[in-house]
Order: sequence, then C-alpha cells, then structure tokens
Amino acid sequence: MPRRDVPWPRGMEGRLCYGGDYNPEQWPESVWDEDIALMGEAGVNLVSLGVFAWSRLEPREGEYEFGWLDRVMDGLAEHGIRADLATATASPPPWFSHAHPGSLPVDRDGRRLWYGSRQSFCPSSPEYRDAAAGLVERLATRYGDHPALALWHVNNEYGCHIRRCWCDTSAEAFRTWLQRRYGDIDALNEAWGAAFWSQRYSAWEQILPPRGTPSFPNPTQQLDFYRFSSDELIVCFRAERDLLHRITPGVPVTTNFLIAEWGVDYWAFAAEVDVVSMDHYLVAERADPHADLALIADLARSLAGGRPWILMEHATSAVNWQPRNLARPAGRMRRDSLAHVARGADAVLYFQWRQSRAGAEKWHSGMVPHAGTETKVWREVVALGGELADLAEVAGSRVVADAAILLDWANKWAQDHECQPSVDMDPVAFTEQWHAALRAAAITCDFAHPSADLDAYRLVLVPALYLVSDAGAENLAAYVARGGTAVVGPFSGVVDEHDHVRLGGYPGAWRDLLGVRVQEHFPLAAGETVTLSDGSQGRAWTELATVTDAQTLLTYADGPLCGGPALTRRVHGAGVVHYLTTQPTADGLRALLARLAAGAGVQAEVTVPGVEAVTRRHPDGRSYTFLANDGAEPLDVPVDGELLGEATGVATPGGVQLPPGGLAILRRA
Amino acid sequence: MPRRDVPWPRGMEGRLCYGGDYNPEQWPESVWDEDIALMGEAGVNLVSLGVFAWSRLEPREGEYEFGWLDRVMDGLAEHGIRADLATATASPPPWFSHAHPGSLPVDRDGRRLWYGSRQSFCPSSPEYRDAAAGLVERLATRYGDHPALALWHVNNEYGCHIRRCWCDTSAEAFRTWLQRRYGDIDALNEAWGAAFWSQRYSAWEQILPPRGTPSFPNPTQQLDFYRFSSDELIVCFRAERDLLHRITPGVPVTTNFLIAEWGVDYWAFAAEVDVVSMDHYLVAERADPHADLALIADLARSLAGGRPWILMEHATSAVNWQPRNLARPAGRMRRDSLAHVARGADAVLYFQWRQSRAGAEKWHSGMVPHAGTETKVWREVVALGGELADLAEVAGSRVVADAAILLDWANKWAQDHECQPSVDMDPVAFTEQWHAALRAAAITCDFAHPSADLDAYRLVLVPALYLVSDAGAENLAAYVARGGTAVVGPFSGVVDEHDHVRLGGYPGAWRDLLGVRVQEHFPLAAGETVTLSDGSQGRAWTELATVTDAQTLLTYADGPLCGGPALTRRVHGAGVVHYLTTQPTADGLRALLARLAAGAGVQAEVTVPGVEAVTRRHPDGRSYTFLANDGAEPLDVPVDGELLGEATGVATPGGVQLPPGGLAILRRA
Amino acid sequence: MPRRDVPWPRGMEGRLCYGGDYNPEQWPESVWDEDIALMGEAGVNLVSLGVFAWSRLEPREGEYEFGWLDRVMDGLAEHGIRADLATATASPPPWFSHAHPGSLPVDRDGRRLWYGSRQSFCPSSPEYRDAAAGLVERLATRYGDHPALALWHVNNEYGCHIRRCWCDTSAEAFRTWLQRRYGDIDALNEAWGAAFWSQRYSAWEQILPPRGTPSFPNPTQQLDFYRFSSDELIVCFRAERDLLHRITPGVPVTTNFLIAEWGVDYWAFAAEVDVVSMDHYLVAERADPHADLALIADLARSLAGGRPWILMEHATSAVNWQPRNLARPAGRMRRDSLAHVARGADAVLYFQWRQSRAGAEKWHSGMVPHAGTETKVWREVVALGGELADLAEVAGSRVVADAAILLDWANKWAQDHECQPSVDMDPVAFTEQWHAALRAAAITCDFAHPSADLDAYRLVLVPALYLVSDAGAENLAAYVARGGTAVVGPFSGVVDEHDHVRLGGYPGAWRDLLGVRVQEHFPLAAGETVTLSDGSQGRAWTELATVTDAQTLLTYADGPLCGGPALTRRVHGAGVVHYLTTQPTADGLRALLARLAAGAGVQAEVTVPGVEAVTRRHPDGRSYTFLANDGAEPLDVPVDGELLGEATGVATPGGVQLPPGGLAILRRA
Repeated sequence: MPRRDVPWPRGMEGRLCYGGDYNPEQWPESVWDEDIALMGEAGVNLVSLGVFAWSRLEPREGEYEFGWLDRVMDGLAEHGIRADLATATASPPPWFSHAHPGSLPVDRDGRRLWYGSRQSFCPSSPEYRDAAAGLVERLATRYGDHPALALWHVNNEYGCHIRRCWCDTSAEAFRTWLQRRYGDIDALNEAWGAAFWSQRYSAWEQILPPRGTPSFPNPTQQLDFYRFSSDELIVCFRAERDLLHRITPGVPVTTNFLIAEWGVDYWAFAAEVDVVSMDHYLVAERADPHADLALIADLARSLAGGRPWILMEHATSAVNWQPRNLARPAGRMRRDSLAHVARGADAVLYFQWRQSRAGAEKWHSGMVPHAGTETKVWREVVALGGELADLAEVAGSRVVADAAILLDWANKWAQDHECQPSVDMDPVAFTEQWHAALRAAAITCDFAHPSADLDAYRLVLVPALYLVSDAGAENLAAYVARGGTAVVGPFSGVVDEHDHVRLGGYPGAWRDLLGVRVQEHFPLAAGETVTLSDGSQGRAWTELATVTDAQTLLTYADGPLCGGPALTRRVHGAGVVHYLTTQPTADGLRALLARLAAGAGVQAEVTVPGVEAVTRRHPDGRSYTFLANDGAEPLDVPVDGELLGEATGVATPGGVQLPPGGLAILRRA
Repeated sequence: MPRRDVPWPRGMEGRLCYGGDYNPEQWPESVWDEDIALMGEAGVNLVSLGVFAWSRLEPREGEYEFGWLDRVMDGLAEHGIRADLATATASPPPWFSHAHPGSLPVDRDGRRLWYGSRQSFCPSSPEYRDAAAGLVERLATRYGDHPALALWHVNNEYGCHIRRCWCDTSAEAFRTWLQRRYGDIDALNEAWGAAFWSQRYSAWEQILPPRGTPSFPNPTQQLDFYRFSSDELIVCFRAERDLLHRITPGVPVTTNFLIAEWGVDYWAFAAEVDVVSMDHYLVAERADPHADLALIADLARSLAGGRPWILMEHATSAVNWQPRNLARPAGRMRRDSLAHVARGADAVLYFQWRQSRAGAEKWHSGMVPHAGTETKVWREVVALGGELADLAEVAGSRVVADAAILLDWANKWAQDHECQPSVDMDPVAFTEQWHAALRAAAITCDFAHPSADLDAYRLVLVPALYLVSDAGAENLAAYVARGGTAVVGPFSGVVDEHDHVRLGGYPGAWRDLLGVRVQEHFPLAAGETVTLSDGSQGRAWTELATVTDAQTLLTYADGPLCGGPALTRRVHGAGVVHYLTTQPTADGLRALLARLAAGAGVQAEVTVPGVEAVTRRHPDGRSYTFLANDGAEPLDVPVDGELLGEATGVATPGGVQLPPGGLAILRRA
Repeated sequence: MPRRDVPWPRGMEGRLCYGGDYNPEQWPESVWDEDIALMGEAGVNLVSLGVFAWSRLEPREGEYEFGWLDRVMDGLAEHGIRADLATATASPPPWFSHAHPGSLPVDRDGRRLWYGSRQSFCPSSPEYRDAAAGLVERLATRYGDHPALALWHVNNEYGCHIRRCWCDTSAEAFRTWLQRRYGDIDALNEAWGAAFWSQRYSAWEQILPPRGTPSFPNPTQQLDFYRFSSDELIVCFRAERDLLHRITPGVPVTTNFLIAEWGVDYWAFAAEVDVVSMDHYLVAERADPHADLALIADLARSLAGGRPWILMEHATSAVNWQPRNLARPAGRMRRDSLAHVARGADAVLYFQWRQSRAGAEKWHSGMVPHAGTETKVWREVVALGGELADLAEVAGSRVVADAAILLDWANKWAQDHECQPSVDMDPVAFTEQWHAALRAAAITCDFAHPSADLDAYRLVLVPALYLVSDAGAENLAAYVARGGTAVVGPFSGVVDEHDHVRLGGYPGAWRDLLGVRVQEHFPLAAGETVTLSDGSQGRAWTELATVTDAQTLLTYADGPLCGGPALTRRVHGAGVVHYLTTQPTADGLRALLARLAAGAGVQAEVTVPGVEAVTRRHPDGRSYTFLANDGAEPLDVPVDGELLGEATGVATPGGVQLPPGGLAILRRA
C-alpha cells in the first residue's frame, strides 16, 4: 500500500483528473497553442508530460535544454492545466547507450539488446543510474516550484520490456542481493536444493543468473532471480523518488504500473509510491476483454489500499501492438473509461494526447486523432471530459469489498518453471477465472497479499496459491479461526517460499486447516474433464485425496478417482474453510462461488444476470453505483437512485433500464 | 526497365532458348560427353554454366584453374550450345571465408552465419567485393571472345538467403548510405520521427542497423535499412557488371531474380541489367500454385519493360526445400513451362541439367534424373525441346496489357513493421488476390511502379499501397485526370516515403482525388466478415469514412459502420477513380474488378470461366494465344486460330477444345 | 552387443533386481535409516547410488569427501542391498565450470550453455575428461572391494541434453575425427559432395561443425558431425570404463541408455558396455504409450544381444517434464514395470527412490512419495517388490524372436536434413508404425543392425532404410538368397553411407534384388491418401515404379500413378523379398505384415485381438508368457499354463481370462 499520505496530485483535490500523455516534443511549436486550446475544449486538467523526452532535454552528454519545456509548462499553467511531469528516464538517448554499451540489457541467451527502441537499459547498470539521477536532479530543481506541477511521473512502465537482465553487471548485483538474503553460501545451497544435480556452490563468485542451460534450470535460482529483478526495478524507482522527495518534498511521486507478464511485484512496489497509477490496454480479440479491465482495476485499487488511483494510460480506440488492433465502436470509449472510475479510479488519462505521426506507435489511437477533430473520437473525448467534470462529487469515494482473492507474484514466478505438473495449472488463468466468476455473480472483490490483514473480508478466495510462506499459511488459518470463510483451490499451499515441497501429504501448508490429505496429483489430459457428484464438471486437474477431518460436499463421479472428494468443508474455530481438488468449469465455478459467498454473508450488488455492478461510497454515506450492460438486450435493474452524468440508462418505476452497451451511474439514497 | 539495348543473348536471336544450369564440376569428366550428346537429343541450346564453381576455379587464394572450364566451353561451342557463363561469385570458397571471417554475414541477433552452405558473404564486405572482382576480371578476360559465350550470369539469386546483414561493416556502410540520403543528422532525426521514444541522434556514429531491441524498432530506421540492404546488393551487381561491360562490351549481362520475401527492389535492379532473368519455383501445396506462376511471370515481363525475358530457373518436377516436394504428374512440366512463355518468356531454363547425386539439392529434380533417360521426365524434356524449336516464330513477340497493378517494394517493407493496425493487411496477399481476380476474369495485366508512366493503361489498380511518395500520389491523380480509370484499395495512400502519416484524414495522399475522408480504421477480428449492400462480403478491414465529393456505390449493411461507404466513385478530370474501404472476398472481388474493367474498356481475353488465356503479339500483327484449362472437365473455347506445337487441344468448328490439364497455342489470324 | 561376458551385477545372479536411483545427499542423514528400513519393506535389492553427487564428493577442486558415501555403502551392505555405484561425472560442480568456462557446451548458434542445470560439459573438453578421470579413479580405488558394490554406473544418459557441441574444441576434435575417417582432404571433398555450392576445402583447418549458415548445410557434413558427436560420447564412456576395468576388473560396468532424439548410436555404444541398461519414460498423452514402451524394451533386448538387461530408470507414476504429467491409475505401475520384464528386463529400477523435495525434478514421482508411505504408490511399490521376488525363476530366461526390424542411427541422421523429399517420411515414425503393426499382430520382434547376422530370423523388415552401406545392402540380399523373407518399405536403399544417391533408378541398393526400378518419388500432399487395388490405403508417399523382374501383388487404384505397382514379390535364391512403394495405413499394415509373416512361417504368440503377448524361455525349456489386456473388456486367452505372481488374470477351463488393464504371467508346460 502506498507509503506516504501526501496529497493527491497537487491542485487536483476533489476533481476527477482527465487528460493523457503529452509529448509536445514530437510536434512543431506551432501546434502547441492548438493543443492548449483543444485541451480546454475537452476539459483536460492533467497531462503526463515528457515521458520520452530525455534526448530532447539532454541532447548531448551534460548539455541540457529546458527552454522548450519551460514554455510548455508555462502554457499549461496559464490555462489551468496541471502536469504529471515525467523524469524522462525510461529511454536513455542514443548518445548515452553508444557511450556506455555496458548499460545495454542482455537477454537469457546472451544477446545484447540495442537502442533505437525504448527501455534499453540494464536496471543494475551504475552508469544508467547515475545518468538518470543527474537528469532527475535538474528537473526537480528547475520545476519543483512550477505552478503547473501536480505530480512526478518517474520513468515509465518499469519492466514492460526489460524485466530481467542477464549481463555480467546484473550477475554481480544478483550475487550481492543473494548475499544479503542468505548470509552464507550453505544457506543458499540449502534454499536452492543444490544437492540436486550436483549444483552445490563453494563460493559466491560461481553464482550466475539462470542463463541458457543444457536442461531445466534450478527452480529456486530462477525464482530468486525473478525476485531480484523485480527488486532492482524498485531500487531504480526509489533512487529517483528519494531525490524528488528531498528536493520537492510536497510533491507526490508516482510511476505507472503495467501488468506485463506479471514481472514486477507490485505489492512491494506499491509500498514505495505516493499514489498508485495503473495503465491498462484492452486486448480487443479476447473473449471477454472487460473481464481483464475489471481485474486490473480491482488490482489497482487493492494496491492503493482502497484509496483512489490514477488510470494513467489507456486508449481512446485502437492500440498498436496487437495482431489486430480493433477500433472502439461509438460509445465504447466512455463505457470503458468509466468502468475504471467505477472500480476506484479518480483519474482517466490516455496514451496519448495527440496521435503520433511517425514512430512505432503511430497506429495507437490518441485523444486528437490523425484525422483531427471532426471525428468520432474527438467528439467522445469532449463529451467524456464534460461528464467527468459533472461527476466531480464521485472523487474521493471508495469501493468497499467483502471478498478478497489472495494473489502473490512469487507464487506466479515459481510456477513459471518448465517442470510443473501441468501446463494447464496457470495461476494467472485461475485467478482470472475466479475473479470472472465473482464478477458474473456481481460480487465486488479486492485482491490481497497472503500475509495481509484479512479481517475486513467475509470471504477469502485462494484460487491457485501453490507457493505460500509459513507466515502466509498461518495468516489464512488465523483469519478462519477468527470467523472468516475461506475457499482454497487445488494445488495451493504445496511449497514454501523456497519452492520446497511441504512433505507428508499436500497441501502441506493447510493440511490440518482443511482436514484433507492429498496423496498424489492427477492432472487431466488436454481437454479432458471429470464429472462431479452434482453433475458439474472439473477441468485441468484432480487430486487423489483423503478426508481426515472434514465434510465431503462433492465427490468425483467418474474417472480413476471416482468417489474421492472434490469439494470439502471444515469448521475451524469461528470460521469455515472449503477445499476444491479440481477446477470447476466457468458456469459451475460461478454457481459455486455465489453459493459459498452467500453462505459467508457476502451480498451481490445486483441479482440481474448480465449486469456488471460496482458501488463507490463516501465516508458520509453518499454512494454511487455503476451499472453496465454488455449484452445485446436491454436489462431492467431494480436499483434506486438518481442518474448522473451522460446517463446511458433511463429511470423506470422499478429502478433503471440499461440499453445494450450502456453504462449508467446512480447516486444512491 | 533494363538499362541498355544490347542484343538478346548472343547467337540466340529469333529462337526460344532451352536448357538449364550446368554444373559439370559435380561430375567426372567421363560424364561430360554424355551430357553434350543428351543436350543435343533434347534440343538444349543454352546452359548456365559454373554458377557455384568458384572453389573449383580458384581452389586456393590466387591459384586459378580454368583448364576444365576451357574443355567444357569448347565442347559446348563444338556442338552449337551457348553458355550463359556465370561469374561464380555467389558462394565464396571455404578458404576465402576462413581467411576473412569478417566477410561472413551476421544476423539481427548478432549471430555470425558460417560457410558450408551458400551465399555466406556480407554484401558490404570490401574483402568479398575485391575477391569477386578478381575472379570476374579473369573470367571476362579469358572467355570474352569464346564462341560459346552468349551471356554473362552475375552471381545468383542475390538476397535469396542473405537479404540483410547486421555486422559492423554493414553498420558503417549504412551510415554512409544515410549520410548520402539525408545530408545532416537533423534531417535524419526528422525523417525517422526520432523525437518519439527519445531516439534523437546527436552524431552519425551512434546510428546502427535495427538490431535486436527491447521493444519495437523505429519503423523508418527499419525501412531505410531495408532500402540500404537492397541497394547494397545492387552495388555488388553493378561492380561486376561494369567490369564485364568494360572487358566484353558486346556481351549482355544478367543476374537471375528470385522473389524471396520481397527483399530486393527489382524496379531499381531491373534498371541495371541488360536482360531480365527470373527464377520461379512452384509451391506445390498452395491452393492455386499457377496463380503464383502467372504473377511472377507478369512481374518479370513488367520488370523487362514488356520485352522478352529469360526464365532462368524452374523445375522439371519436384523441388527440394518445401515440406512436401510433390512431383509433377505427366504433362504438367510442359504446361507450366509454356505458361511462362505465354507471359513473355523467350527462354525456358531449369535448375538443373543433371540432378545432383550429393549435396543439399540432390532431391531437386533435373532435366536428367537420377534414374537416367528411361524416365517420364527425360521423355518430356526431349518433347518440350522439340516443341520449343517448332515455336521459334513466337520469339520476340510481346504481351500487351491494358491493365496494371501498382506495386512498390518500399510499401511492402514499411508494412513489415510489427505495429501495423492488422496482420491481415498483408500487401503481398492483397496484390496476389487482385492479380488472381484479374486472371480469373481473363484480363491480362502488368505491374507498374507508382511513379511510372501509366498512360498506356486503361485501368490502374492500387490494391494495397499504404506508402506512396508525393510523386507517386501525384502521378496517379494526373493519370486519372488525363482520362484513366483507377481503383484504390483500402489502407492505401496513408503514409509518405518516410512512413509518416499524412494528417487530416486518410488516405491523405488521395483524399481530394477520391472525394472521401476516412476518420478511423476498423480492422476486423480474425475471420470476421462484413456484408455490403449488394450482398457481397468484405474481409480483414473496414474504414469509418465520409464521402466529401464522390458517389457511394456500395455501403456496409451490418456491423458498427453500417450505412457507411464501402465503394465510391468519383469523376476526376477526364477519368474516374474508385475507392474501396474494405477488401472483398474472392468471388466478389473478381466480379467487381471485371465490372470496373469493362467500364474502363478493358477486354477479357476469353469469356469461358476456368480458361486462362494470354496473347503475345508481333509488331507485324501476328499473334499467339495461349489457352490453359486446369479444371477437371474439357472446355470449349471460341477462339479462332491454328494450333501450334504439341497441342493438347483439338480444333473444333467453333474454336478449340481443351482437355483437363491441357495447354494449347493458337496462331491467330 | 555387450563387449565382455562378465557376470551380471555382482551378487544379483538368479534374481530380478528391484530398486531405484538413490540420492541420499539430498536428505539429512537422519532420513537414511528410514530409507534402509523402507527398502527392506519394499524388497529393494539394488540401488543406483550418487549419480549426481560430484559436488558432494569433490566440493572444491581436489578436496574429496567420501565419509558420507562410506556410511551409505556400509548401511546398504549391512542390509543386503547392492549398489550400482555411479561415477558421478554427469554433472560437473559449479566450481569446475566456473574455473573452466571453455568446458561448457556451445550450441549451433554459438550460444554457450551454462551450469546450474545438468550435463553442462562439452564431450570433447580435455579439462572435463581429466576431471572426470580423477574422480573415477578415486571412487574405483575406494569402493572396488566394497561388499555392497554390484555394478559401476558410468555418467548418466549420455547425450540426453548435450548430444552435440559446436565449440572450437569440438571443431578441432571433429577435424581430427575426419582426418582419421578420410585420410586426405580430397576424399572428404568427394564424400561431402563439396563440388556442390562451391564448398571444396583446400585445408583441414577450414573445416567446421555445421554451425548456423545462410541456407541449408551440407548433408554429409551434418551426417558426419552427428557420427562424430555420437562417437565422442562413447569415447567419454570408454575412458571411464577402462579405468574401472583396470582398477576393479571383476565388476561389470554399465551406463544407462536413453532414446533422446536418437542422438547416440547405441549399436556402437552397446558393444562397449558390460551390461545394457535402458531408461524409459512413458509419454502419458501419446495415443498408445505402451507401443513406445514395447519398442524401447525390444530395442534394449536387441542391443543386449538377447541377454537380460537392466531397466535402469522408469517412473512409479507421474514424470515431470511433459506438458501434462499424468499420474498412473491404480495397478498401472505393476503392469508397465512387468511389461519390461516380459521383453527381457531382469531388473526393475525407478528414478528415484525418494521423491525430491526441491529442484527441477521434484514433481517426478518416486518410490517414496512426498506424501510418504500411506499412499497408493508406496503400497504398489511394496507389492511389486514382493511379486518380483516370487518371480525369481524368470531371471535369465530370454525372449526369442523370429522377426527383426532393421534399424540404423546413421539412416535417421541422414534424414534429419531439411531438404528431404517429404517431412512425412520420418524413419522413426515408420519404424514405430511397423513395430506397432507387429505388436498388434502378437508377433515378437527384435531390432537388428543392417550388417548384423540375420540368419536367426524368418522375417526381416526394412521399413525406412533410406541410407544403407554397400555391406548392409549386400547383407540383406545374401540373407534372402539363403532362404530368408524380407519386406522392404518405400524410400529405402536410395543412398550410400555418404548420403550419395545410388544412380540409375531407386532403390539403387536393392534394385536387382527386388526386380523393381523406381523412376521418381511422388510424395503425397499433407493428409492425402491413395487407394490400393485391394481397397487398402497408402499414405505419405508413392513411387513411380516399373517391375523389371518381380510379381506385382498390389497396384495403385487411383491418383496419377494409377495402375503402377504398390507391392511386389520376388523369389531370390532360396528366399523371397517384397517391396512396398507406399506406406499402408495402420490397419492395412497390420494385416499385410501378419500375412507376410505367416507366409514366412512366423508364429503369432496368441490370436486374440487386443492381447499383447510375449514369451521368455530358459534353455532348459521352461517358459513364461506375459499377457496384457489394455482394452476396456475382459478377454479370454486360450493359453495353457500356471499363473504366477500377483496374477491379474484368472485361470479358465480354456486358458486365462484377463480383466481390463490386467497383466498375467503364465508358467508354460
């Protein structure tokens, strides 16, 4: 959760922020005046400025050019637009990389990755860190007191492309990190299970990142390298942030998160930022792209500890890096942007203000399209700007969830190893499926770290927590004992923080808590399913289990484990815990989680199938329910309240009617 | 178009050439006499000699062995067979590469590619160029006056494997090329859109080829690198050619083109050769391999400016590099070879004369198969040799087309970037589809460069010209203004020569010409189609467009753009121009282009569905129509004329009947 | 066939061995006592000890620690358990690789492969060989007289991951190997067909392994490199074995074979070991995983010259490296283990004794599972141990086959080249299909090298022997002449040992023997089939053939070769030979081979469809028939005899009834 309770971006209190990435350096100065005028027309009040401007700010080593940025900042200030000013360190200029080739990242196969794209730096490179600090210091000094400055934007999407670097500098930093973690080499050998395959190290200098090897790498070496790599990115951030805090103590600092292959531990990272910012890009060809939107927004809010967060980047229409970058049909931009607000965002920003004319992202949509202002996109941008101004009262309200899904990056990283029991046991996919089941049941949920305080929740879900530390394991048991309800999915709790199997029967972390002992995992073949005793289906996975101290609610009705337990229930202290030995298919999972949630006293937001619903609440009781209908038929939703904004719903005697594709906001009594 | 009006291969005037690659160095001298005898039996009159003979001609640095080649050349001359004598520079010998490892090519990932295969040289390597020049000079001096010499065959299939090289030598050459192109670094920064992602260069020495990068490369850097790489191959050719022209001024010079990933700009290259030569290999498992044959033959003729060209390599039966190398059934070899003659080839040569016994291509068919002369292949080789002698009167006649398809390599290269709107917008596939639609409608067409003189054509098609220069854009508008008819496909005219978007609404190059303004592209999802107002289907792509000054002929009948324009028509000056905002499916495209062609006064060769027809004409009015039936039923074709050669058709009262698989040649009245 | 007639593992005579890989170094010493006790409970009598213990035995260069191994060996001896003691050289410790980076392997693309996994050594590295020898010498000296020692286990699965190395050391070793093979460089140029593509070498130093090249590599260079690479692994083995033989002359030496991409020539390797050991892992998602089990077991027996062999590794349940590692249902472990015994194994060993808690193989099942002894797996382990003790009388008996399939590694390697006629002509797949057809017909078969003495067989099958040496070709002809029956499959006998095509018509090696001359190969398109005159189907391949001196039994009934010969028969001397010009589909192949086998006097073991049957015989006439039923219905098998062991069949008046999944063993009269 964010570290400091500094103000929301300076000057933006009580408002919903609206704007986007602003890269004036891509355009002649003659365009800048038009930019300011159009921002005014659209109601833009916050822009992320200069994210990739390093080569413009420091065109040659030690030669800085701030004049152009002064003019941009002054222009913004003059028109009441605030800047989320970037430190511009995400892409070192060619002169830097050319002078310091050792700062370029190296991949697992030993190939150096070159400049001419972006993010071409090894996170552990001292040359890179020094050069970045030099730029940050100058920017902070120059603009710390500028009236336009609302927020510092450090770097950009850390780890989006370079999540890990295998170069010799990184190897040395990895060794240092390991020495801090383990103290002596025998502890490392023990943690890494180095007795296996003759991998015992006799000196620190022998240790390497998990570079290309003849066969499978050591799983714990890989896991630790992923941990180290995530930490190194946070260290880069922290260095810039500390400089900014020192020079401009009153200005909050953020960096935009992006879920890219789940490479960076955002629980750890969120503790370092003043405000959580998240980027999200809809993958248009997914079966249900809104499921991903909802998950990422819930995650952003959870990382922010429930406080408002900034949607730092999303797209007005097409993105540019997907195989087919589908445009948004009319009305969809508003629906998707407000869906983030529904889940706690107090800022709606896009990449980017003006669609580029050249470069690798020229086919990414912008607020001002190539075709200019006589366009669907621009009209919708202006309309949404107006609506967000009308919705200012929503700012600061919070989503309060009764359910939480446990999620941990190390768990995902451990399961990235090639030698797991089944490729179908993908913890991200499982988490998505459980989240989607809750969303389909209109149950709002947070995400939580396994060691977090869970007492605020009536229901805690553990879909795929293969790896859990002793502390995490105990935390869940204690939560249940104090009265909570938990549902544990298959293949959870099986290894400790070093990826060592907890012996004596799975799931070792919770065998006693669950009252179930698993002898052996029985992954299913590709596409295979198993029938359960209530007629529902399990997929991907089954377990040969024995109930030692629990009630069996469902059994397998066919297959080699026929008759064995599929779902169990055990009262533990004041609470209840369930265990699933298989992964139900979508319909069954939704029905099952809805039933268990009801049993735990978790209320659904609405009971109309097909309606997505989330409520934001002020401490004073005012609340706002966001309702969306992504189906093809109008839906009547029995929720009272006053329609706000550019309502795409109509009040009816019993509540509100949502048209297909509609999203409505109700001020609740 | 070819540079000099030198004679057709010396001594081959008024004849159709017949033969193949002849590599006597692979066989003991005892076989050579049989070779000559069999060539006589088959009517071979031209062979490509010694294409891969460098290591035999110069077995050690500076030690030349020409005695064996003297004997071969003398033997050929003695029997009236002419040589297309190779400069043998396509594959440097092992001793060369071993002594000059810096001459080996390096791929994008920095991996050096070794010798032991073929084409293992960096095109920019000065060592390679020097060594090649040394060999060429000696060959030219020794054989320039030899009576067997008809033609020089420079290198072989430039760019077939090594289209681009990323080594440091290539990087240096790239910088030199860029300095010539842009003059100063700011012009390069502007052209490359280097303000994006902080890519501004402050010195030439910083510039690199687009090697592996963390994220997407700069599109214009990549485009320029593709341009440079194509140019470097042409430079290699030109160096050899200039030597040959100097030493043997009366001997024409060629090199065999091959469409391999469209890596070399053959418009530019064709301007450098004396005679255009093209290789073509049928991909047997394609749905319609003859469509590709026809396209390549039409392209070869177009590159030759309509003059006769040399089919330098094709196969008598199986090739060796496809997943399944299907053999040709009886009769198919004749059909496929004559299909090239139909489209303007005056030479039918194969790879290769005698099928190799060893090496990577031993499973490629030859004129003399492994099994010898008691074979289907040999019998057909002998028969075709006789038929071509009978068809000598066809030599020198030309195909005259009323339609042309615009095609440009830079356009293809620009669209190779990873971040285009849709992977389904493949300019090569679109060009193939439009060409196939014309062929199915029996309309003969050329290809033309966007800046070429188009006035000879009644109809100009622009299927997928995303990138067009200002000159190209203006050329099309002027052509229409002077009375031409043009049909512009979707996603054409959108960027300039630097791959910068033309702003203000697509397609910026022709917005006024078409009277259409496109706000936004709406790519379709994978496999998705859209219905048009005449019931036909569009695929891959749609556009949100407004008609500003045109007639709407078709609209979208469903989907989010329902009602918007799909096909428009505008009169411009004395001509007419159409715009398609989607890509019709095959049947619809054929019907549409047939209709528009008819409207433009373009005549179909025949009107019998399933018949492929092309006519060659002499200036004196004699003409020859080639008719092919690839269907399973006999077809009656109402075309008058006298059957020539080994006709696989029979004269009927109304014209000619073609059996399944038949190809007939008619001398027209 | 194994080289020396040394005793079966010392002390194991007359018993079936039972046990697994024992890696006590992965566990605290406190566990070792339990290990011994549990081994006793399970009837374990042989363990493979310390396979990956190098880093424990020599934790720092030259510092040896044997105390722990002394204690383990003493404990085993004390409880009557024998050790297959490993030389532990399969994985050099990190300190070694760190100190000798030149010993690390390099792949075809020039990437060095690092330590931290296993098998990270270049087989040609002198540093590696020296270090290995130092360890082996010490182990042999220390444990040669230990009462627990039964067998030496050299290294582990040579070539499983590093089959070939492309580093400079390997290049030098390759040159030396080639000099020995060819004597002078002209012989190499001739063998490699180096006249093709200008590849003639003028000095040995120019020669390289077939590293990454611009186009296809030289096929014979690649073939020779595969031969060299296989030889280098055998050289590594021989060095260790010779040390062991010198120091401990009475102790047999083995190494465990594993078919991994068919990279190592086991005909050559088997001649170097004292006892043949084979590893086998069921690929659970294959259509018929037992077909592979049977093939590998038959191959192991054939490599052992018919003598008993050691099943050195297989799994009690799940493996860990497959996409989905399916567990074995109850009863399946016994069935699969005894299926190896049926085909000649006198030892049933698993990887591994105790399932690892950490490392890359922790999800591989063991004899002692993570969940301990209250498990399905442990119960079955104990039961099988008891049953094997009861089956001791089977030990030493042999399987005698009347049929043999010719198989050669060089043939496979030659067909690995990218430019073969069809990807569907996979010699491994063809061999599997022919073996499966025989198994389905209950015909027991061996594998044999093409140059082996074949007179013991009534029927010899040649499914896919593209490459055959002159000696191999003559061997088959002589076998037939002496009265044998042979069936030759398509695309066999076409090239010589240098991969040079035998000219004059395929299959050059056997054109006269077969009385058939093939003009041209006609591969089929993907998925295409052809109908034969008896209504059966051919797939993948057809041939345009002429019968010169044979009887045509089947012809093609459709396609371009309609009417041409598909199956021929010719009497040669006292025998008969058949030729197939296509590959029949599964049912047709089974029927055909069953018919031809019957004609050759080869008896099926049983005639009940769905029953797998194999018989082992003692010289004194006692015999044991193993019957398995993998179908879903019980089957009655009319075979007399007394049921042995934990029979999963019941005696019936007419023989024995096998339940679904059952495997029964009958002592025959």
